[in-house]
Amino acid sequence: MASFNSFDIESWERFYRANFVNCLTGFKSVNLIGTVNERGQPNLGIFSSIVHIGSNPPLVGYINRPVSAAPHTMANIQATKVYTINHIDPSFVKQAHQTSARYEAGISEFAEVGLTAEFQENMPAPFVKESHIKYALSLQQIIPIELNDTFLVIGKVISIHLDSEIVSADGFLNLEKAATICSNGLDGYYTTELLNRFSYAKPGIEPEKIN
Amino acid sequence: MASFNSFDIESWERFYRANFVNCLTGFKSVNLIGTVNERGQPNLGIFSSIVHIGSNPPLVGYINRPVSAAPHTMANIQATKVYTINHIDPSFVKQAHQTSARYEAGISEFAEVGLTAEFQENMPAPFVKESHIKYALSLQQIIPIELNDTFLVIGKVISIHLDSEIVSADGFLNLEKAATICSNGLDGYYTTELLNRFSYAKPGIEPEKIN
Repeated sequence: MASFNSFDIESWERFYRANFVNCLTGFKSVNLIGTVNERGQPNLGIFSSIVHIGSNPPLVGYINRPVSAAPHTMANIQATKVYTINHIDPSFVKQAHQTSARYEAGISEFAEVGLTAEFQENMPAPFVKESHIKYALSLQQIIPIELNDTFLVIGKVISIHLDSEIVSADGFLNLEKAATICSNGLDGYYTTELLNRFSYAKPGIEPEKIN
Repeated sequence: MASFNSFDIESWERFYRANFVNCLTGFKSVNLIGTVNERGQPNLGIFSSIVHIGSNPPLVGYINRPVSAAPHTMANIQATKVYTINHIDPSFVKQAHQTSARYEAGISEFAEVGLTAEFQENMPAPFVKESHIKYALSLQQIIPIELNDTFLVIGKVISIHLDSEIVSADGFLNLEKAATICSNGLDGYYTTELLNRFSYAKPGIEPEKIN
């Protein structure tokens, strides 16, 4: 087993360190975030820093990089207070990855990469038509993280659209049946296979498989 | 495709909603966090809310539930300023899940579930010996999220221990070779398979597979 300390990590070449540290946190939820600016211009970006904040109320967060590196998505959310999060499957992973290119503010990534903007009633932010699991959020709070000029953007889930076949009787979503992928590092995309579910853990009782 | 709005979500039974909303955010990094209290008593808990904050400096966050629901890990981190994050593989996923049982403060989950505390020089917090990818962090900041009484706990990576075979020439970690698992919802555990890596995206240029 190899060991590395702070001095090693600081000495690494910039892209080597970015790959290494981005992988260290493990497999990640990777999604497309859809927004519009005040003039209705759509924007679509890929984000792998989605994090569950709570279920009641249903709160979802994501980390937005410094404004200089990732300006459009958060500016649109601040302007319109709404956004969509769309799961990715293998049939459009290449198009999803391509949204990470640095397009100018006036450009719609939908048109550039070949994905379809889909609009639902009372929601100005675009969904990704090709996505099988998607939801809209209402901005609740943007918390600046001064340590590295990033932001925790927190939204409340206000609508959900998904294939009903993936919903179990207890509310669990069989994401693998919708072929939702996950990511690793900056550019690795993965399919998944269910190992198993376990029963609610209690002290002194061995958990049972509940598949 | 089924659709649900805020009223639907609020009307759901509590555990149904918890399952549903926890799955909605997609596949998650699932890890064991190792800590000690001021008297050196070890604690181990499973967390699926790890999020990458930045690579330079190497910052990793996790969401800690309200103190009443998850008291020990964050209290130990506040007391000692250090903790470890340990990847999980299928050989000990049942033990990892069992750490989510509500053990009393004086109990070591290591002993209760059958995992081995491993200590490295200059690091009071325990690693999980069975884990093939693990790292230690120094607490940088705890940001309260007042929306639902949770906390974003941010640490700086200060040491890394892993099997060197999984490190690619460019720093990418082949987590699937270490059998690192991911999770879905509250209790689903998954293995992964690499779909592919893509080259750095630039406007107007189709990304290439770089496996």
